[in-house]
This record gives sequence, structure tokens and C-alpha cells, in this order.
Amino acid sequence: MSPLNFTHILTQAVDELSESESYKGLFHQHKDGEPLPSAKVLYEIIELSRSILFPGYYGNSTINSHTINYHIGVNIEKLYDLLSEQILAGLCFGTAEGKCNTCSDSKREEASRLAAKFISKLPCMRKILATDVEAAYNGDPAAESYGEVICCYPAIKAISNYRIAHELLELGVPLIPRIITEMAHSETGIDIHPGAKIGSYFTIDHGTGVVIGATSIIGNNVKLYQGVTLGAKSFPLDADGKPIKGIPRHPILEDNVIVYSNATILGRITIGKDATVGGNIWVTENVPAGAKIVQTKAKK
Amino acid sequence: MSPLNFTHILTQAVDELSESESYKGLFHQHKDGEPLPSAKVLYEIIELSRSILFPGYYGNSTINSHTINYHIGVNIEKLYDLLSEQILAGLCFGTAEGKCNTCSDSKREEASRLAAKFISKLPCMRKILATDVEAAYNGDPAAESYGEVICCYPAIKAISNYRIAHELLELGVPLIPRIITEMAHSETGIDIHPGAKIGSYFTIDHGTGVVIGATSIIGNNVKLYQGVTLGAKSFPLDADGKPIKGIPRHPILEDNVIVYSNATILGRITIGKDATVGGNIWVTENVPAGAKIVQTKAKK
Amino acid sequence: MSPLNFTHILTQAVDELSESESYKGLFHQHKDGEPLPSAKVLYEIIELSRSILFPGYYGNSTINSHTINYHIGVNIEKLYDLLSEQILAGLCFGTAEGKCNTCSDSKREEASRLAAKFISKLPCMRKILATDVEAAYNGDPAAESYGEVICCYPAIKAISNYRIAHELLELGVPLIPRIITEMAHSETGIDIHPGAKIGSYFTIDHGTGVVIGATSIIGNNVKLYQGVTLGAKSFPLDADGKPIKGIPRHPILEDNVIVYSNATILGRITIGKDATVGGNIWVTENVPAGAKIVQTKAKK
Amino acid sequence: MSPLNFTHILTQAVDELSESESYKGLFHQHKDGEPLPSAKVLYEIIELSRSILFPGYYGNSTINSHTINYHIGVNIEKLYDLLSEQILAGLCFGTAEGKCNTCSDSKREEASRLAAKFISKLPCMRKILATDVEAAYNGDPAAESYGEVICCYPAIKAISNYRIAHELLELGVPLIPRIITEMAHSETGIDIHPGAKIGSYFTIDHGTGVVIGATSIIGNNVKLYQGVTLGAKSFPLDADGKPIKGIPRHPILEDNVIVYSNATILGRITIGKDATVGGNIWVTENVPAGAKIVQTKAKK
Amino acid sequence: MSPLNFTHILTQAVDELSESESYKGLFHQHKDGEPLPSAKVLYEIIELSRSILFPGYYGNSTINSHTINYHIGVNIEKLYDLLSEQILAGLCFGTAEGKCNTCSDSKREEASRLAAKFISKLPCMRKILATDVEAAYNGDPAAESYGEVICCYPAIKAISNYRIAHELLELGVPLIPRIITEMAHSETGIDIHPGAKIGSYFTIDHGTGVVIGATSIIGNNVKLYQGVTLGAKSFPLDADGKPIKGIPRHPILEDNVIVYSNATILGRITIGKDATVGGNIWVTENVPAGAKIVQTKAKK
Amino acid sequence: MSPLNFTHILTQAVDELSESESYKGLFHQHKDGEPLPSAKVLYEIIELSRSILFPGYYGNSTINSHTINYHIGVNIEKLYDLLSEQILAGLCFGTAEGKCNTCSDSKREEASRLAAKFISKLPCMRKILATDVEAAYNGDPAAESYGEVICCYPAIKAISNYRIAHELLELGVPLIPRIITEMAHSETGIDIHPGAKIGSYFTIDHGTGVVIGATSIIGNNVKLYQGVTLGAKSFPLDADGKPIKGIPRHPILEDNVIVYSNATILGRITIGKDATVGGNIWVTENVPAGAKIVQTKAKK
Repeated sequence: MSPLNFTHILTQAVDELSESESYKGLFHQHKDGEPLPSAKVLYEIIELSRSILFPGYYGNSTINSHTINYHIGVNIEKLYDLLSEQILAGLCFGTAEGKCNTCSDSKREEASRLAAKFISKLPCMRKILATDVEAAYNGDPAAESYGEVICCYPAIKAISNYRIAHELLELGVPLIPRIITEMAHSETGIDIHPGAKIGSYFTIDHGTGVVIGATSIIGNNVKLYQGVTLGAKSFPLDADGKPIKGIPRHPILEDNVIVYSNATILGRITIGKDATVGGNIWVTENVPAGAKIVQTKAKK
Repeated sequence: MSPLNFTHILTQAVDELSESESYKGLFHQHKDGEPLPSAKVLYEIIELSRSILFPGYYGNSTINSHTINYHIGVNIEKLYDLLSEQILAGLCFGTAEGKCNTCSDSKREEASRLAAKFISKLPCMRKILATDVEAAYNGDPAAESYGEVICCYPAIKAISNYRIAHELLELGVPLIPRIITEMAHSETGIDIHPGAKIGSYFTIDHGTGVVIGATSIIGNNVKLYQGVTLGAKSFPLDADGKPIKGIPRHPILEDNVIVYSNATILGRITIGKDATVGGNIWVTENVPAGAKIVQTKAKK
Repeated sequence: MSPLNFTHILTQAVDELSESESYKGLFHQHKDGEPLPSAKVLYEIIELSRSILFPGYYGNSTINSHTINYHIGVNIEKLYDLLSEQILAGLCFGTAEGKCNTCSDSKREEASRLAAKFISKLPCMRKILATDVEAAYNGDPAAESYGEVICCYPAIKAISNYRIAHELLELGVPLIPRIITEMAHSETGIDIHPGAKIGSYFTIDHGTGVVIGATSIIGNNVKLYQGVTLGAKSFPLDADGKPIKGIPRHPILEDNVIVYSNATILGRITIGKDATVGGNIWVTENVPAGAKIVQTKAKK
Repeated sequence: MSPLNFTHILTQAVDELSESESYKGLFHQHKDGEPLPSAKVLYEIIELSRSILFPGYYGNSTINSHTINYHIGVNIEKLYDLLSEQILAGLCFGTAEGKCNTCSDSKREEASRLAAKFISKLPCMRKILATDVEAAYNGDPAAESYGEVICCYPAIKAISNYRIAHELLELGVPLIPRIITEMAHSETGIDIHPGAKIGSYFTIDHGTGVVIGATSIIGNNVKLYQGVTLGAKSFPLDADGKPIKGIPRHPILEDNVIVYSNATILGRITIGKDATVGGNIWVTENVPAGAKIVQTKAKK
Repeated sequence: MSPLNFTHILTQAVDELSESESYKGLFHQHKDGEPLPSAKVLYEIIELSRSILFPGYYGNSTINSHTINYHIGVNIEKLYDLLSEQILAGLCFGTAEGKCNTCSDSKREEASRLAAKFISKLPCMRKILATDVEAAYNGDPAAESYGEVICCYPAIKAISNYRIAHELLELGVPLIPRIITEMAHSETGIDIHPGAKIGSYFTIDHGTGVVIGATSIIGNNVKLYQGVTLGAKSFPLDADGKPIKGIPRHPILEDNVIVYSNATILGRITIGKDATVGGNIWVTENVPAGAKIVQTKAKK
Repeated sequence: MSPLNFTHILTQAVDELSESESYKGLFHQHKDGEPLPSAKVLYEIIELSRSILFPGYYGNSTINSHTINYHIGVNIEKLYDLLSEQILAGLCFGTAEGKCNTCSDSKREEASRLAAKFISKLPCMRKILATDVEAAYNGDPAAESYGEVICCYPAIKAISNYRIAHELLELGVPLIPRIITEMAHSETGIDIHPGAKIGSYFTIDHGTGVVIGATSIIGNNVKLYQGVTLGAKSFPLDADGKPIKGIPRHPILEDNVIVYSNATILGRITIGKDATVGGNIWVTENVPAGAKIVQTKAKK
């Protein structure tokens, strides 16, 4: 193709793609001081958090008990800096559609305050993650040590990201919690919405294909297998025929529930304490405490 | 182990693994001017395409409406260069088994021509992707803005890659379309074959485990949930007992069809307009327009 | 937030997170000469192995039959160095909880010996992987060449990692085999435990969500589709109520078995020779040779 | 050395080195919004400037006359962003010793204003650099093309950095101009203080060891060889015995002067129009216009 | 500064800097297949050459005598590929001002031919560099081993680059030789023009500031100290007042000459066999064989 | 060039260059556990040292007085690890020519011990470098703050590297000290041999071309300008005609001496207290305390 000819095609494509009509709704315009949250920086934030929560397993592996406070100190300071910056980006993004005259110093301060709050929650987050590790170890005959669970198990990665994201959501940070859980989704195939509420000793075996919706409530000591969906059955529409946002629409799983692989549980129903849901079934009604439900037998 | 001893083991392994008999069918020999398509460059091509299609969300986030044409211009020029080179690699790979005396200037020109054609399709691709974004936003009560959908939703990543790959396949580019959809498969767990035909306002919720086969046809305004398979039931074999390639063998989904999680639809059947397919079921026969089919009730 | 105030929060969080009580079981302390296995180095090891097993497809693509021995030579030498170091890390990790007085020269030698043994197995590994490539090509009407299968198919990536990891497990290397299969799990959504035994001509179509448990046994010429689980049904607990480790608890699939998408096969049962298991069903009892089992029909 | 023992040494060294007494004058404390100028970012700024001033020779080499405005546009926008940020760092550094209550929005605005002014000077800077390139080409029989001069000649690199740094100094930017000329000093061995005033058609042959002091004044069409010093002879001290800053103390070289290698010219003297200074001599008195001075003959 | 205002400044600067008048002589336009030689790739070429010439000291340090041929093989193949590409860029650059209709296959072939010739010269280059290493070791009482000389001495780096560049110049490759010697100039402060002819056992002590002009001729066993210039005195001008290119204008140093630090030797004069030139003097006339010349005594 | 033909040239070059005769003295063979010191790691060691000695100016610039001990702690631990490894490499290199049966655990311990000793010297090194910074600031009317001196002045970089390297040399570490000073030589053009002894308040202005030989002794409060050589005049040869190593052969500069640019001082002579040496002269005899010597006047 002659260079001249290509220049024409290029020029025309550039013109069409730069026309404001063509990018309506698909274009994020930078306003001063309002960069978009950065996936790369959020990834670094997750790595830092993991290295603080599970020292020696993530981050610098030469750490020991005499030097741990130097490492935790440096990592927390860095986490604070990066997180302040990303929360600011999230706050500005949240208001991007309207005006953002107030986007300057007060928002900056707000972002720093939220980042510091998050940091003060880290010790609690480590405490609950310790119960998740214990549950994964106890629940899998193939697990040989806590170390193996922390290093290798996708569930620990997905649950860590969820617990971090949930904390940020609780603090009122927009957008970022969702990006963080989607990172784990991409890495592990486990999709936990940051809005879900999940108790201690939670574990997921294998995990690929698990979906936990935004208004799900999960008690303590619950175990899910791969491919389990906690989803919405249907959702009320508003006058314009659009789904009404924010209504509870996902299941409640009480303490000690087990759900086997590829089961689909839909709607604001309750799976009672100690119940077991078998694999590959579709559940849309309450299951009483202690019950076991399984698939109708296959035909041979 | 003594260094000498290892040298012997190494030498022998090298000799065995370099013997032509041992790498039959597993070795890609470089011929002059015929490098293999590069996953790393194709990844860059996808990033560039995303930054052109969704300016500000991907690529440089400091872009604004006064400078957008500079950015689009530079990105399109780079995309053209990289794509020409990769298409050339794909064309040469396609003929790698036979001879490639003609692999020089005419192929080079062909590759440039195809790359330019692809670029002239970008405005259309942005138009249809805008409908996909709208469908995802409208279909998910948890979605808070178009921006969140574009940034976070795996479906948008998978569908973008599919639409790019499908365009390249239509232009007759070998191998590369498949690598591009497999990239999205790895990132999102959504496996759409570039050969499938998919209408506008298409969306996939959560997405992990979705499979859309090569000869599938999907109408407008269709929604799939995680784990849905549009697959082949079985395929006719040729005289040598090998599957005959290129025969239509995947389902047709007409407009407004919804398929819930983990449903498996197999064979060249038709799911009629407005039909709904429930989760966790196996469908191998036509479903009439407007029908709703669900799983047999589970046993308690 | 005033810098002073944050300094206080930071100091306190550092103190809490550095207290030995708070990181019990979650902290990997470095002892001299015992770094943790490195995910980054193991990734490099996988890339090197792939470039040796499928020359030209992975690694340097300018290789040809005259220079192949130079490339194989350099790559094997590097593989030996990296693998020795990682195996040493794995051996030390394995004994990390107890004492490791003997962690020095004898372990170093052991690690080198095992790395060399692994290298001597590479020609066999290439031979069996060739059968897997052939099976994938023959089993998929959409596959256009062996090259496409090797470049793009997630199954080949997952099975390569499995065969490498299984070999290392057989040699008695701790931890590392599991990390290697989890890498493929993250990349492809296919989770094969390195302990499984798998015959030749093995293939998995699409693959996302496949789980193959630690004590599974798979014959020759077996094909799985996406979402298939070969899992454990339940497992005996010891006196403390913890699962007893190491008991056979996953299915046996004999030669020529086909399992369709999202089927779940649980427990130490046998799916007999030439049997076919349909999609989306839950199987917990033996299936005789040659049988075909499918889901109960859906309700409309 | 026992780990315990080392821990003691480390702890003690950390304590000593963290004591405020020990780092007096050597410690740059970060205050909010006042990072230090970054050598890495300034390096990028120089690369961007070179790619704008000499398009195609630096930066993206695929540029052509049809696409040049896209490239210049993107590069200038990026230059503006990076430069604003670095100028802000420089402004804050400049006041670092005192208080910086005013360090916020007004300084931010000032930094942006200065960056924009710098950008408006780029066309003039290109114009004068074109004369420098011409002088280098005409003055060196070994030069084969303008392109070779722009690509290879250290003088062009050093003079570009000087002209950029001088412009920034004129705008009142602290610290950064000096870092920029020191970058060229390290790269080329040519040390031009950004405060010097230098006319058009300036060239330096080979250049290693050239020093041009802060208050030097150089006319048009001047040529220096390697190792030439334009320095200060001595400088008046203040009451405390410290040198008084800001007094003119370096030579004036009028139009068309040539200075040969390793000559040292010291103090506020004038080398008159068309004069020639021979190599390896020490000059501390005025040289009349048109004169030629050389070294006393060597002894054999 | 208001964003709007800056947009205006930016737009105007872009327009001015994109005007063809403004970049005359300073713009390298890309024509198809004619990228500029790349400093980054040439740097890699130097690293590869050093790793081939001094195996184990540069490049992979795990090499040993049993595996050296694998490493040399891979490195030479890579060197050939990169060099072919850069030579092609150099050949096209050489003709960039005129037309380059013939820039295609014949030039490509020429570039490959020259790269292969260069590779066949590598054994000779290693032989002569061995004499340079020996001379550096013998000439410096502070040198403790050949290894230290090869690893640390800037002279070895500068002389290696010179010998590589000289070989390429002899083969008729344009531009690239000069870039390669300027790389060493920047790294070491030693500026040797690739056109100079230099015998065996050549060494330079310390080296910063040394300049060796394009038509210099240096015999065997010559030693220079830092700051020595072998330059041109003046050069005949052509009718337009421009220097005539290609005339011999730099000194000849016969065998065993020593020149001490900062001496300047100018013009086509001969320093006879075994002569010694003292430091800091300016020499513009022949020096007879065996003579010693020194500076006139300093005044106290 | 036909691929076949090139294969022949390549094969032959590989064979010649792999022959043991051809690489005699130029080949560093790796023995187990004896890698070569790594320039890349040593560069990191220098960066770490600078960040410890001048906190906030080098390394992480977000450090403040509340968090400094975390940063110093982490950096010292990392410095200890990297330095132990490099010292081990240096120790093994030192004995590379002979046998190294003892290269294992005792050397490893020795390396750790030396690294710890080095770390215990860091507080003293910071103290003396503070005097060098003060001297540079006081001696240059163009210097505007200590910060500018620390950030920009090449002398500080060169003197820091020298003081680090000198300390390592005193501890008996081979090879590495020289590599460290050569790094500064390449960066700044200042070549200080690690063996030189240099007092406090030492400064070098501009610095390019300065050479300070291995046995030089420099008192307190000495200032050198660019291009100054402290060299050897000639050195006694041994019976084989090779220079005898280790004899004092470089000048002694007593307290408060100033040496102007491009002066060359050669041999074991003494420049007495408070003496001044003018530029561009060659000094080979003692200069009495308080004397001023200058160049013979130039001829006009």
C-alpha cells in the first residue's frame, strides 16, 4: 500500500475518532488533579498489603523477627502514600460527571484521612485472614502446611483482595474496591463483589467460576467449591425499565453452610445453618437449617 | 553432583533434544523474514486499540478534548506499524508448512493493506462497543457508571478483544485472531472464538467459564451469565476418522435471549427470540421463541 | 490529616503488626540460605522449559535446525542453574518448621542432583506432550495446525505445567510442583493437582473451571471439556476432626473416556473404558465401560 | 558471622545513622507536596525536548512530515506535565530551608505558568540549535552529514542541555537547570554552567574536560576544543571568609574566537574578536582582538 | 494558568514546530524500511561482542569450557541478526538525502553479507585485543590480574569499541562506527575516531580526555596517558571556505612511543620510534626517533 | 547472503572462538559458587550506600525524621545481603588462578564478617563526607545550598565512591574497590584509585580528567580543579622488565594545598602545606610549604 494512501486512511480515521460525537460516554477527560485510578498502582498496593499481612511470604523474603518492624514501617509508609493518591483519584472520579470545584485541598485531606483509617484497620484484617488460612488448611487433605496455603491457594488471594476492597468500600471509597476485586477475579477466576459481607473461617476450594454478588451475606465457617454462584434471580425495574440499584437481591448463607461445585443459588433466599447444597443444582428457594439438597439422579 | 557428571547429563540431553526426530511437529523453524507472531507485541496492539476505542480509560489518562487528535494520531500510527508486522508474521505462518518463495514484497504489501483496512474499521468498532457498554450498565444493578463498566468489567475486555479479532478474521488474517481471543480468555475466563457472529448490545455477566464456539450466531441484545457454553454436540468425521473442519455446529441465539449461569447449549440448534434458558441445564434441542426452560427441581 | 497525626497512626500500626503474637502462622522467617521459592524465577523456569520442549514456538523464534543445539544448550544450562536454586529453596521450606542444621552442603548437592535428574527426563516429557498436541488437534474441528494448538491452546499450557510439576513431585521436590500448577491455573482456569496421574493423548477443550484432584488417575486418550470436576466426595477425619491426608479420594477415568462440560465426578469411583459422561451432571457412583450418562431432561 | 551478632551491629548502625545529630545538613526531609526533583524524570524531560527539537533523530524514528504534528503534540503535552511537576519540586526545594506555608495552589499555578512559558520558547531554541549544528558540521572535516552531527556529536548534546537549562534559569527556576547541565556533563565530559551566556553558531570539538563558568559571556561563532577552561581566577571573600556569590568572575569571549585544547582562561578578562588562543596555556590577562597566543616552545 | 490558556500556547507551539521551514536539516523523516540506527540496539551489539571476545567477563558469567560453544553460538547468531538490521539502517541512512529506490532486497542482502564478514573477523579481533590487555597489565604497577584489567580498565572498553568500529568502517558501513566510538567516549572520556589506524599492544592509562583524530596512525606498543590529543592543526578550506574532507591531518606515532598526560600533538607530523613526549606540552613539529621532549620549567 | 552460507561462517566462527587456545587469559570460567562480581549489583550497592549516607537526597525522597529509622533499617539489611554476596565473589575471584578448595563455608563466613564491618563504619563515613560537602559549598561561589551540592556536584559522587571503596580496600576486599571507583570515573570523569589516602574537607571543582594515583597521600582541606593529575613519574622494573608493584610512587599533598586545572604532578614528591600549584604545568620536584608556582608566560 502506498504510504500516501495510508496517510489518507490514517488522517480520516483520526478525524472520525476525535469527533466528540463518536466518543460520547466512552471518553474519560482528564481534569486538572483528577487522573484516573491506575491499575498498575493498585496492583502495587495489593502487593504491599499482602507483604504486610503475610510478612515473608509476599514481598521481601529476607525478613526476620529482628528486622520485621523496619520492613513493616517502610511498607506501610509507602502504602499510605500510594493509597492516598489512588483514593483521591477515586473520589474525583466519583464526582466526575458533575462539577468538581471542591476537588482540591479538602479532597486531598479527605483522601489522606481515609488512607490512614485503612492502615489502622490492617491488624484486624490480618486477624480475620488468619482464620481463613486455617479454614483452607483444615478443609483440604492435600494441603501440607500453612505456608503452602498462603503461597499457592487462589482462595487466599481472592479473599485477601476482597477483605481489602470491602474495608475501602466501608470507608466510602468509590470505584477502587471494585477494581481490586476484579484483579483477583482475573488472577483466580473467583469474583467476589466488595459489597458482600463475609464472616470468619471462610474458604473456597479451587475456586474458578465462583461468583458472590454485591448484597450476599455469608456467616462464619462457610465453604464453597468451584463454580458456585450466589446471584440475583431477577430485579425490579424502575419507571424507565432500568434495574433499581441497591436492593438486597443475593442469598444469605448462615454459619457452617457448604455449597458444592457449580451450584447456583439465586435471589434473597436463606440457606440455613449447617445446610449442605449439592453440586450442579439451581436453588431459588430457602433451604432449612441442616438440610442437604442434591441433584436429581442422572439418566444412564 | 559433580560438575563433570552434570556436564555429561547436559550434553546428552542437548543432543537428544536437538535430534530432528525428537521435535517433529513441535518445532517452529525460523525462515528469513518469517518470525512468529509475538504475544508481547499483540498485547501492545490490544492496549493501543483499547486506548483508541476508549480514550482516557486506557492508555494515557491526561488526554482531553483539545489534545485528543494528537493522541489518537500517534496511537493509530503505532498501531498500523505493529499490526502490519504481526499480520505479515501471521500470513507467513499460514503458509509455513509449504514453500514461501513469495514471502517477500507482495506479502509485505498485503500485510500493510490489511492493517490499513483494519484501521478504517475502528470508528465502526467503537460504535458497536458503545452499545455493549450500555447493555452492561443497564443490565447490572451494581454498576454505578459507564466509567466503572469500561474500567472494571471483564465482559468489556473480552468483547473488545473478540470484536477486534473478528474483524481481523474477516480480513483473512490467520492465527492472530485466535491468539487475541485467547489473551482475553486468560485474562477474564471468557472464551469467545473469533469466528462467532455477535450482534449489538451484547453482554456477559461475571463471565468466568463462558465458551462461545466458532460457528455460533448471536443476535442483538443477548445476555449470558457466567459458565454458559455455546458448544458443538458432536461432529461428523471424515474418512480418516478426523473431524471435518468448517461445518456449522454451534447454536444460534436470536434477539433478546437470556441464558443463565452454567447452562450448556450444544449443537446447531436455535434458541428463539426472547427465550430464557435457566441455569445449570443441558440443552441440545431447539427452544421456541419466548420459551423459558429450567432445571428439574432438586431433591432435598 | 495532619502529618503528625498520621505518624502516630503509622507508628501504632507498625508496632501492632510487628508483634510476634499477631503474625503467628502467617510469617515466613528467613534463615540463612533458606529463601522462599520465587514465583518470578519459577515463571522463568516454565518459560525455559517450554522453549526447550517446543523450540521456536516459545523463547527465541529465530532458531533453526542448524543452530538449535546452541539454543537448547544455553537454555538447559540456565534451567539447571535456576532449578537447582529453587529446588534448594523448596527442600529448605519443607523442613522449615523443624530444625535445619543440615541445610548446607548436603542439601545443595541434593538440589543439584534432582535438577539434573529432571533435565534427563526432558526428552520423555517432549515425547508425551507431542501426543497431547496431536489429541488437541484431532479433537477440535476449529484447530488449523499443530502450530496454532501449541501457540494458543490453554490446555497445552496447563498440561505442560502439570507434566513438569508431576515430574518434580515424583522426584520428591516439595512445594514447587504446586506453585507451578497454580501458575497454569491462574493463566488458564485449569486446576490440575501435580499428584494426579495422567496418560498420553490427553486433552481438555476450552478448559476454564476444570479441576483434577490430587489422587485422580486418568488413562490414555481421555478428553475433558470446560468446567469438569474430578473431585473428592468427602474425606475421613482423624481423631481431632481434621481430614486424614493422603488417602485415594478422587476418580479413576479409564482409557478413551469423554466428560462433557461442567460435569462433576466425585469420590474414588471408576468411569469405565470408552464411557461418556454428559454435561452438568453430578456423578458419585461407578460408571460401567462404554456407558453414556446424561442429565434428566429440563422442564419447559 | 552469627546472625545474632550481625543483628546487633545492624541495630546499632541503624540507631547511630538515624540520630538527628548525625545527618545534620545531609538529610532532605520530605514535606507534604514537596518531593525532590527527580533525576529520572528530568532525564525523560531532556529526551522529550530532544525529540521535539530534532524530530526523527531522537524519540520515535517512524515520524514523517504528515504525522509530525501528532507526535509533536503528544510530546509537548507530556513535556508540559512533567516539567510543571519538576518545576514545582524545584520551587519548593528553593524555599525548603525556611517555611513553606504558601507551597500549595499558588506555587502549583506558578509552576504551570513557567512550564507553559518554556514551551513557547521551544521554536526559538530550535532555531539557535540549528546554527550550532551548522557550525559543528562546517568546523569538522570528519563530519559527513548534519544527521551524523545530530546523532553522534557530544557537543550537540551538551549544548542542547545548556540551552534548555539556560532558558529555565532565565525563567527563575531553581536547582533544575544545574541538574540538567550536570547530566550533560556526566554524558559528555562538557561542563557548561546554565548561567553562562552563549551566542549562536557555537561549537565544541571532542569536548571532554571543557568547563564554562557561571558568569562567562561568549559571542557568536565561537569554537572551543577539548579541555578548555573558562574559569574564575580567585574570588573576593566576605567578612566570614566565605566567597561572595554572584560577582562576574569568568571570561568574556567575543565573536569568532577560537580556543585550542586544554587552554585555561581565568578571571573577568576579555578575549577580543577574532583572537586565537593556543593549546595548553594559562591565560589570566586580556587578549586583544585578532591576536594569536601560543605556548612557549618545549625543550627537547 | 488556566487550562484553556495553556491549550492555546500548546497548539501554537505545535503548529510552529511542525512547520516544514522550522525543521529544515534537523528532521529525519522515516521512509518505509529505513529506520534510523538505534543507540539501544547498538549498545546491545557492543555487549554481545564483548561477551564473545571476553567470555565470562561480560555476558553470562556461568559459562565454562564445556558449554562455551553453546553460548558463543547463541550470541553470534543474535549478533548477526541485530547487526544485519543496524547495518541496513546505516546503509539507508547513508543514501537518505538522495533517492533510495534500490533500498530493498539488494541492500538487505548487502547488509547480511557485511554482518557475516564482520563475524568472520571476530577471532582476529580477539587476538589483537589480547595484546592490548597484556600491554595494560604490564604497563600499570597497580594492576593485579588480567581479570582486573578486563573488568575495570576504561582503556579496554574504549579500545574494544574502537576495534569493532574500525572493522565496520573498513567494511564500508556508514554512520554506525562513529556511534559506537562515541558510546565509548561517553562511557570512558576516551575519544578515538574509528578511522584511526592503531597497531597491537596499544594502551591508554586512565584515559579521560584522550582524543585520537580520524587520520591518525599509531604503531605497535604505543602508550598514551590521560588528556593526550592527537589532533589536526588547521585544515585547508575549499572554494566555499569549508574544510576539505578526507585529507591526512593527524599525527603518526611510530612503534614504542610514549605520550604523557595532557600533551597536545597537532598536524600531520611524525613522532619517531621510541620517542617520549612529556606532559602538558603542545607539539606541532616532527619529533625524531628516540627523542624526549618536556615542558619549559615552571616559575616559582 | 544465502542462509546456508551464513550457517557455515557462523559455525566456523563459533568453533574458532570456542577453542581453548583462542581465549587464553581472556576467559573467566565459572566454578561452582564463584560467580564474578556483578557491575549491576555493585551499582545497587552504591545507590543504597548513598541513600543511607544522604537520606532523602538519594533513594526514597518521602522519608522524614519520624520514619527515617525504618528506611535506614531496610536499606542497611539489603546492603548487608548484597555486599556479603559481592565480597564473596571478590574473595573467590582473588584466588581464581590458584586452587579454591576452601571456597565454601569459611569464605562465606568471612564475606559476611567483612560486610558487617563495613556497615559498622558507615556512621564515620557519613561524618567525613559531611566535611567534603561543606568544603564544596564554601569553595564555590556558584553553589546555592548544601542540597544543590549533594544533588548535583560530581565531586561528591566521586568522593563518596572513593570513600566507600577505600574502606573496602582497607578491609582486604579484592577487585571490588576498583570497580566502584571506576563507576564514578565513568559517571564523573574523576579517577581516584581506592588505595589513595585522603583527609577531610576534600573537594574537586568540575573534576573531569582528575587522576589520583594509588599511593597518593592527601592532607586535610585540599582542593583540586579539573584535569589535575597526581601520577607516577616512572617506576622501577623487576628482573623481567615488568614494573614492580606496590612501591610508593605518587605525590604527597599536605594540608591546605590548592592545585589549579590541568596541572600534572608526578612522582613521590611533596607539595608542602599551604602551597598553590598553577594550571597547565608539569611538576616533578618538591614544592616548599606556602609556595606558589605558575606556568611560564605565553607568547603572543
